Amino acid sequence: MQLFIGNKNYSTWSLRAWYLMSKFNVLFDETQLVLDTSDFYDELQKHFTVQKVPALIDGELNVWDSLAICEYINDAYLSGAAWPKNTHDRAQARSLSAEMHSGFMALRNEMPMNIRATRKVELSLAAKKDIARIDNIFANQQTLYPNSWLFGEFSITDAMYAPVVLRLKTYQISLSPAAEQYCQHVMSCKVLQNWVTQALTETDIVESDEAGVEV
Amino acid sequence: MQLFIGNKNYSTWSLRAWYLMSKFNVLFDETQLVLDTSDFYDELQKHFTVQKVPALIDGELNVWDSLAICEYINDAYLSGAAWPKNTHDRAQARSLSAEMHSGFMALRNEMPMNIRATRKVELSLAAKKDIARIDNIFANQQTLYPNSWLFGEFSITDAMYAPVVLRLKTYQISLSPAAEQYCQHVMSCKVLQNWVTQALTETDIVESDEAGVEV
Repeated sequence: MQLFIGNKNYSTWSLRAWYLMSKFNVLFDETQLVLDTSDFYDELQKHFTVQKVPALIDGELNVWDSLAICEYINDAYLSGAAWPKNTHDRAQARSLSAEMHSGFMALRNEMPMNIRATRKVELSLAAKKDIARIDNIFANQQTLYPNSWLFGEFSITDAMYAPVVLRLKTYQISLSPAAEQYCQHVMSCKVLQNWVTQALTETDIVESDEAGVEV
Repeated sequence: MQLFIGNKNYSTWSLRAWYLMSKFNVLFDETQLVLDTSDFYDELQKHFTVQKVPALIDGELNVWDSLAICEYINDAYLSGAAWPKNTHDRAQARSLSAEMHSGFMALRNEMPMNIRATRKVELSLAAKKDIARIDNIFANQQTLYPNSWLFGEFSITDAMYAPVVLRLKTYQISLSPAAEQYCQHVMSCKVLQNWVTQALTETDIVESDEAGVEV
């Protein structure tokens, strides 16, 4: 199985699929391509109609889009273990994952993931609302599952929100204590730390993802 | 079970959840709210943290976001029947559904769903690329499953792409014969026709969704 990803410093969608697969010990070969280069598009075009990362090749099968890859891995390799076991939590987990998948546009535009940086940005009202919603999600789930993943056990939802945790750190955003507690739980994960360590060795720069001023 | 939806003339995300549930004969009560009114937000705020449609209440459980609602219904009521049976098609179906869920922004912005209208719009290059991709998806699947749904049997993917079929009609977009054949298959569906018939009785106007010039 071959997973195509972008720069670890910048590529939030790549992180989501990579994190899910790595955390559940699903074995794969990793092909890393530098975002926004001709090599990136040339390589993906050999295999995929849509030239975006993450993208997965599993034998005869091509799967694209982070959420679809997570659902595929859950379905084909994990017998459903990547979602919470009980119906209530599973429905909530899917709602939160879908909310991230199609939403939080202001936060995503104004606070691009940039793991190696420490920055300050002036945020729009929309981005502030996105952060308030994130705080609310993290804090609520911590009251249900203290010092743990969003639904107790690690799930696709944690993978979907991991890039936000890294963004909050880069742009030094203050959160409520309960939300901060979740972020600390995520940052203490060895698998995520592996991604971060690898991101810190990268030197390529994607200008469009370099927002804010150094602090 | 109570499904909250917006205007049938305009609300693409509402259509997706409503269509999936209706087509699979999952019984629900429908609560329709007029988009962009204070009543819309007041009513949703009583039940949901996120004030968007579609939104579903099933007993103690609140589910939001179209794709999450479709996955929930598939999971809790349909024993998986809302996705293709074989692993290959299921992975493709999920990729296409996720691609629609998070993409096609130009098409979505420039060609808002407006069932009762017949319009012409000047499209950006990005929107034209979106349409070419849609044509490619529909035509490819028609070669695999002629005169049928995208994966033979009706699935969540057909529900996800149904609003695009209606948009192509409103803005009189020409497609390849194979893609056109899929659109005709969708338009011949009695359940979709019910939605369209109800949309045509609506008189509320949402200015932001009134793009293009009458023809």
